[in-house]
Amino acid sequence: MEELFSKVLQISVRCRDSEERKTSIRISIDLHVTSPVHKRDLRVKLTDDKDPFFLFKLSISEEDFQSLKVQQGLLVDFASFPQKFIDLLNLCYSEQESENPRFLLHISCQSSVLDGPVALSVVETNAFKHLNHLSLRLVQGSDKEIKEYLALCLSSLKAEKQLLEQNLQKTEDNLSRQLSYAQQ
Amino acid sequence: MEELFSKVLQISVRCRDSEERKTSIRISIDLHVTSPVHKRDLRVKLTDDKDPFFLFKLSISEEDFQSLKVQQGLLVDFASFPQKFIDLLNLCYSEQESENPRFLLHISCQSSVLDGPVALSVVETNAFKHLNHLSLRLVQGSDKEIKEYLALCLSSLKAEKQLLEQNLQKTEDNLSRQLSYAQQ
Repeated sequence: MEELFSKVLQISVRCRDSEERKTSIRISIDLHVTSPVHKRDLRVKLTDDKDPFFLFKLSISEEDFQSLKVQQGLLVDFASFPQKFIDLLNLCYSEQESENPRFLLHISCQSSVLDGPVALSVVETNAFKHLNHLSLRLVQGSDKEIKEYLALCLSSLKAEKQLLEQNLQKTEDNLSRQLSYAQQ
Repeated sequence: MEELFSKVLQISVRCRDSEERKTSIRISIDLHVTSPVHKRDLRVKLTDDKDPFFLFKLSISEEDFQSLKVQQGLLVDFASFPQKFIDLLNLCYSEQESENPRFLLHISCQSSVLDGPVALSVVETNAFKHLNHLSLRLVQGSDKEIKEYLALCLSSLKAEKQLLEQNLQKTEDNLSRQLSYAQQ
């Protein structure tokens, strides 16, 4: 698995019968290569650093991409699609503090709360209209998928904590040594 | 929820058609009180600090306890049962480094791997025989339950990490201040 992108982005969320609201969601993009057939899948994941149960995901194989390409009139191939998508996300990221961002991410869902499938869109707003650059359909993670995602979070958090403990120990040792030297 | 016990204990595991093996399992005991009816449930949980997907659990209500009491010939009531159970676990804990522990925990399961229901027993071995002090039937956690358990682990680990970060900052500040004072 190769991580291509992972950032917290401002997303405008619209559910059925609800006011539009802004929220911070982490978007991660990974490339999974299955050996030995060398099948490549692009995986898009939406998570919320504050809500462990929030998980929406999409896996795009090369075949899936062909229909996406036709359906949305894309002009790139599967190999260059990830970088183009990341470029769009970075455009949104760079403008998210602005009052009137030109590029904005949207999530829309058919039900009144965020569950079931959602559409994630990158929308450019100019003086004339809203231009939809890309729209992807993500489904909510199952209990099993959320369980696996949380186990991964837990293991990386454990590693971070261990590093921090070592750091604390090293800092204490270092400074105590310098202190006893200075006090001599 | 009131946590009554949480310790890593050596447990002897026997599955069908497999050799008996020893493993370290965390046993946690909590008392859940549901208001407003003031219904009390004793919850027993087996987890493995090294395997995030390992979860076996049992919930004992006051009614459940009545059948357990009859079935296993217990002489205590529901209110004093948790402490008696904890006393037994502590006996096992205090002897687990010994070569021939008198009190030992056993897990047995009908299938060849650890899934499905298991029996957790506290067994005393004397010169004459094995005495079964208590035997509880635990079921494996569902994906949803494991998901919730991992979210809890994640949140407490996050809190620990945050504390550690504050600690590191404080230690650095403190020692730098002392150092600059000593160097003057």
